[in-house]
Amino acid sequence: MDKKVFGYPLKKIGIIGGGQLGKMLSQKAKQMGFYVISLDPSAECPAASVSDEIIVSDFYNPEKLKELVKKSDVTTYEIEHINTAALKELYNKGYNILPSPYCLEIIQDKLRQKQVLKEAGLPVPKFEKVESFDISFFESFGFPLVQKATKGGYDGRGVVVIKDSRSMDKILKTESYVEKFVDVEKELAVIVARNQKGDVVSYPVVEMVFDEAANILDMLIVPARVEKDIEDEAKKIAIKAVETLQSVGVFGVELFLTKDRKILINEIAPRPHNSGHYTIEACITSQFEQHLRAICGLPLGSTKLLSPAVMINLLGEEGYRGTPLIEGLEEALSIEGVSFHFYGKKLTAPFRKMGHVTVVDNDQERAIEKARKVKEILKIKSEVKIG
Amino acid sequence: MDKKVFGYPLKKIGIIGGGQLGKMLSQKAKQMGFYVISLDPSAECPAASVSDEIIVSDFYNPEKLKELVKKSDVTTYEIEHINTAALKELYNKGYNILPSPYCLEIIQDKLRQKQVLKEAGLPVPKFEKVESFDISFFESFGFPLVQKATKGGYDGRGVVVIKDSRSMDKILKTESYVEKFVDVEKELAVIVARNQKGDVVSYPVVEMVFDEAANILDMLIVPARVEKDIEDEAKKIAIKAVETLQSVGVFGVELFLTKDRKILINEIAPRPHNSGHYTIEACITSQFEQHLRAICGLPLGSTKLLSPAVMINLLGEEGYRGTPLIEGLEEALSIEGVSFHFYGKKLTAPFRKMGHVTVVDNDQERAIEKARKVKEILKIKSEVKIG
Repeated sequence: MDKKVFGYPLKKIGIIGGGQLGKMLSQKAKQMGFYVISLDPSAECPAASVSDEIIVSDFYNPEKLKELVKKSDVTTYEIEHINTAALKELYNKGYNILPSPYCLEIIQDKLRQKQVLKEAGLPVPKFEKVESFDISFFESFGFPLVQKATKGGYDGRGVVVIKDSRSMDKILKTESYVEKFVDVEKELAVIVARNQKGDVVSYPVVEMVFDEAANILDMLIVPARVEKDIEDEAKKIAIKAVETLQSVGVFGVELFLTKDRKILINEIAPRPHNSGHYTIEACITSQFEQHLRAICGLPLGSTKLLSPAVMINLLGEEGYRGTPLIEGLEEALSIEGVSFHFYGKKLTAPFRKMGHVTVVDNDQERAIEKARKVKEILKIKSEVKIG
Repeated sequence: MDKKVFGYPLKKIGIIGGGQLGKMLSQKAKQMGFYVISLDPSAECPAASVSDEIIVSDFYNPEKLKELVKKSDVTTYEIEHINTAALKELYNKGYNILPSPYCLEIIQDKLRQKQVLKEAGLPVPKFEKVESFDISFFESFGFPLVQKATKGGYDGRGVVVIKDSRSMDKILKTESYVEKFVDVEKELAVIVARNQKGDVVSYPVVEMVFDEAANILDMLIVPARVEKDIEDEAKKIAIKAVETLQSVGVFGVELFLTKDRKILINEIAPRPHNSGHYTIEACITSQFEQHLRAICGLPLGSTKLLSPAVMINLLGEEGYRGTPLIEGLEEALSIEGVSFHFYGKKLTAPFRKMGHVTVVDNDQERAIEKARKVKEILKIKSEVKIG
């Protein structure tokens, strides 16, 4: 290993997006002695008060992106919906942007992402580009199916399930593809990191439990309650998927475990991921530190799990919009093993991610029980009830 | 438990001192949704870029301290050498300052601290106020002895060891006390937290290993390598000491384990403590979160150790002064279980605390081995060599 010497700050890190992921990334960077410049449309975004500098700009302004990239030794991002063309131009001039904008471009286009993975021999649900909005196209693909917009989807937006030909009124009249509806046993996720030398590490497999009624993530359980061979296979597939993308950073790989015990890739995020928040408390190296190590050419850290953990998102309660009020915090914090994260968003809104809680406990069942209790007592509301 | 509702920010925390302790406290506060105002003489102090606001002032300016206290829901401090008189005045007017300035006043005066502990029946080395600088006073107390300035000592300053009457030229001509030189088997430390309800928790006992030659802390090992009864006794004494002070917050209690198996209190710090840095990685609740919970009237968190750990301070190398250069970082980070903290001080100087490293490893001996290796390879220097 070459005896490279780091000055202070270690490096200047540019982060596109100052939401909770940017905030957590910035906090870890500051712990380690980096200098952080965040770019976000709001000067009051969660990352603002924990970064060294903030550039106020939307994610498409080429001049502001250029300013960020030029000021930074390495630029990264916490969201996918950004100006890839502008970043490619800077990347081609030799600026350090990781994961590369070319990788981001593949991921932004969900259809291309699927094609790339399929071509690499990775298991994905059967899919096809929507060439016509005529019922015959959908019928010949076969019901039930999921239609997904190729671009711009996020947190369930841009996705519809079409059960049969009678639901054809739900179809999205947009550039999209259809995917076979997968009979899912469990949804899993694996955080994978890859550095510039091509070293790859994976974190433990996480089980994503959904609230079927509300169609939102209920809790994340780690380690996933699956057999050893499923766990190994999930990691193997996630690692191969990230290797296929040939880029650098931390990636969140979402997987389906089907009822017939197959693992299929759902989608990949080229950044720290909600399913990896538990790593802050429960792993030796958090996903945020790992991302920094990867993009800064440092050795990757240990992904070892120190304790079983359960993570729940704290979403804005339905019916409330405005300055957040937190109910039940004292009671929640009296439960052993509870870590509370509040992102610092100025306004709550129904289902908005306002914070999260990680519960660590040696006993996985007890951790789940505690997380369920926290979910019951800890509520993000606001003064005024709406609607 | 009353259903108290928290707004955002949860509370405004004022922190006197923006060094590494203030920085780590601020980072945890920001994670949890607090608003942080730091007060420090330097606008470029470690805490500055991770706090919401910085008030630039020395620690004795009553107007600036008042500004901080008035702006904050609760004010705390990361150092002891501050204007207690000004804080007492504000405290008496009903402002929330924790630990209370009265507690701080006792601790600032090391002689009074010892007296208070002794009166509470706690074990301390034999001590006596220096009433005369005449040799006969010291002789009648008995050699070997340690003379300590009652106020202003820090990191070994204001402390001299007088072995016999021939070393009398070393004595400090200042307000001071003498203490019997203790034949130390090991130095131990325990972090204790107490909240407003009077709940008290203690962390695991830490073993402080000193480099005898340089007379500086070499490494901190947790759990301490002592028998169970010593461990229990150390915790019991530390808890009783903190209860004696009747205040609120996190306290670092430094202890001597004597060669004849007695535990004596050395001194107490009314704040998060160097010996508790390992809690960030190795405990469920870090000492910084615990301090926030305590001073904000929240339930105390679990002090459970998730893994054995060893912490080393990263001190500026002798012979270097100036902008820091970090040597060996890549090699150090390639060791499994290493967490790197760099405080962001603009200048290094010999023995200045520039950062720290925590190593976690299931196997304590291996953790010690790894820490020793990190110490060898990771060096804080600067461009220009001095002296």
